[in-house]
Amino acid sequence: MLEGIRILDLTRVMAGPFCTAMLADVGAEVIKIEVPGRGDDSRFLGHMEQGISTYFLMLNRGKKSLTLNLKSNEGIDILKSLIAECDVLIENFRPGVMAKFGLSYADVKAINAKIIYASISGFGQESPLVDKPAYDLIIQAMSGLMSVTGSPDGSPTAVGESVADICSGIYTAWGIMVGLHHRDKTGEGCQIDAAMFDSLYSMSITGLSQFFYGGTTPQRVGNRHPATYPVDSFETSDGYVTMVVATEKVFAGLMAGIGQPELSDDPKFADNKSRNKHERQLKGIIEDWTRRYTSDEVVEKLTEHRVPVGPLWDLKQVAESEHIATRGMTVMETHPILGDMPLVPQPLQFSGQNSRISGPPPELGEHSESVLMDILGYDAAAIEELKFKNVI
Amino acid sequence: MLEGIRILDLTRVMAGPFCTAMLADVGAEVIKIEVPGRGDDSRFLGHMEQGISTYFLMLNRGKKSLTLNLKSNEGIDILKSLIAECDVLIENFRPGVMAKFGLSYADVKAINAKIIYASISGFGQESPLVDKPAYDLIIQAMSGLMSVTGSPDGSPTAVGESVADICSGIYTAWGIMVGLHHRDKTGEGCQIDAAMFDSLYSMSITGLSQFFYGGTTPQRVGNRHPATYPVDSFETSDGYVTMVVATEKVFAGLMAGIGQPELSDDPKFADNKSRNKHERQLKGIIEDWTRRYTSDEVVEKLTEHRVPVGPLWDLKQVAESEHIATRGMTVMETHPILGDMPLVPQPLQFSGQNSRISGPPPELGEHSESVLMDILGYDAAAIEELKFKNVI
Repeated sequence: MLEGIRILDLTRVMAGPFCTAMLADVGAEVIKIEVPGRGDDSRFLGHMEQGISTYFLMLNRGKKSLTLNLKSNEGIDILKSLIAECDVLIENFRPGVMAKFGLSYADVKAINAKIIYASISGFGQESPLVDKPAYDLIIQAMSGLMSVTGSPDGSPTAVGESVADICSGIYTAWGIMVGLHHRDKTGEGCQIDAAMFDSLYSMSITGLSQFFYGGTTPQRVGNRHPATYPVDSFETSDGYVTMVVATEKVFAGLMAGIGQPELSDDPKFADNKSRNKHERQLKGIIEDWTRRYTSDEVVEKLTEHRVPVGPLWDLKQVAESEHIATRGMTVMETHPILGDMPLVPQPLQFSGQNSRISGPPPELGEHSESVLMDILGYDAAAIEELKFKNVI
Repeated sequence: MLEGIRILDLTRVMAGPFCTAMLADVGAEVIKIEVPGRGDDSRFLGHMEQGISTYFLMLNRGKKSLTLNLKSNEGIDILKSLIAECDVLIENFRPGVMAKFGLSYADVKAINAKIIYASISGFGQESPLVDKPAYDLIIQAMSGLMSVTGSPDGSPTAVGESVADICSGIYTAWGIMVGLHHRDKTGEGCQIDAAMFDSLYSMSITGLSQFFYGGTTPQRVGNRHPATYPVDSFETSDGYVTMVVATEKVFAGLMAGIGQPELSDDPKFADNKSRNKHERQLKGIIEDWTRRYTSDEVVEKLTEHRVPVGPLWDLKQVAESEHIATRGMTVMETHPILGDMPLVPQPLQFSGQNSRISGPPPELGEHSESVLMDILGYDAAAIEELKFKNVI
């Protein structure tokens, strides 16, 4: 769907690569710039298999790799020639690094006024925190998300995936499309300044709607809903289930399901206020029952009583589920060394689009020659010279 | 930036409204369809202040509200007339409900072939799980995210914000822009099928890169990094800090910072492998020191030694930070009853765009008359009749 859109991708590790993988999935040409001889740091991060980072593979599906030494004048010159031929430039260096390369938005705009120039950083290009390190864990802790995640009698808890990186990446993919739309209407490019911190802040709608207007600072409530009970997780004989019981009618179904229909008439559980007051007792009653059955059995029995309930799955159960197979959410490619190479595409299904990803991840510098030849018109001799001089 | 894009918004509660709020922020005209006399369920959910849901306010900034009874033929007729005048239709009913209204993609496409028709649901329009309830907590539990969040000796932990709703909303905002781009190039509309489950699955890159290629199912590791130590949170005298110590050089800085430089030469902590092996001892050594100082003091002292470190902030500290003020991430509007009305915009800063949101959230039916008059050409008498018949 983005055929003809060319993206110059200077990003490393996670937020940026997650963003450009989404854009590659829907047909954009993503030219990933990598350090000659080494490549993206993420080629050495995360799970490694036979010396290959499978984390890198999953984050870089469908991209081209062009090695380019940005510390050489010739490397910068090549990059500037490419800027003239691209619709989008995206980078996630520390603020200020692009300017040192002579590649600030003003510099780039002078070459290509219509370009969309997107920067992802921890705290944005201008902020009192601009010099703070932009690691996912630090952003999760500073942005408030950790403060509301976890048990009230435990400690603040980090999400078990790099959500600050990922969510800022998704936001930026959206912003790039907004920029392209605006460019197509007006002929004008723009700069996009995305901050991981701001991305998580903008997501804290539930907590902020309490803090701003109620004046109380949201605290950790474990897995239960801050206001409604029983919306919570419950232990079973082989794991956990979660359920959402938000009305008297559903509560009556739950009590019938656990074989104690009379409790739905008990004044202690008559409404949400009473159920909150007697939360501990109610949780005990429900869990005494759920612990007698497997998660699947609990889900089956309570679903019969129209209680919204689901099992807790680990990533193996998820990845091997019939749902993921039906939805085409794991795409199998072949890696030259590893063989089977499962990749996970962006999640949306667009009608009329059959392929979920546009190709495998690149070997380091796999497309250096083709990019230089096809886009910039270099010949074989010129490319040999660039290799000799360690420019590519 | 999306001036001239008109969105017919049939969504309720969270995923859909979060998506259309982002689009409204950048200038799209969002016409929110609400049940006459009652409105979006979220007008009664979340934090309430003087009978007003502040959660609704934050999720519906910048939109127009048109009440429309979709259970009446006239209501459906009006909706179909609007479909002809809109670029995008978005809905998050349970799969099958739109078809019952006579508003399946095929129905809508017959009226407006160029429309982008986006649906958000728990498990997508086609899935073996299609009938499962799509509550955020249930999706978090089923998608695997809860299984990797929390302490290894505690229980699986839900994220303290509705991330399944929100992330599927952000993805869909992106997908709508991709659809519009494709429409502008080809003249063809499309259907977008977004699933909350698939959205969280697509984000589990770190965990899936381990499961798919390493064959082991990722487990909860608390706040520490699954492979690198010390990347973790540490208690201070007044809270917590997180730090990311991923190299020998940074580790030496940390040991100098806590006044035990000799430990960076201790074979027990010589490299990441040894530090993992002696994790408990190392955590104890670091925390014995961090507990003696406030979070701010720890951050200041360790930053001097170039250790990436940050405090844990709660939402009050975040919302009141100089950073959020500098970034314009809280926008103050005025509510007729509540007075000051802080709202949080989408997080990206686009150059040349001064306003962060396009206006306050709507009263129920606030724009019914203007939408019907300006877009469909109704006169005052016709509108009175619709009111009398409870169509609007």
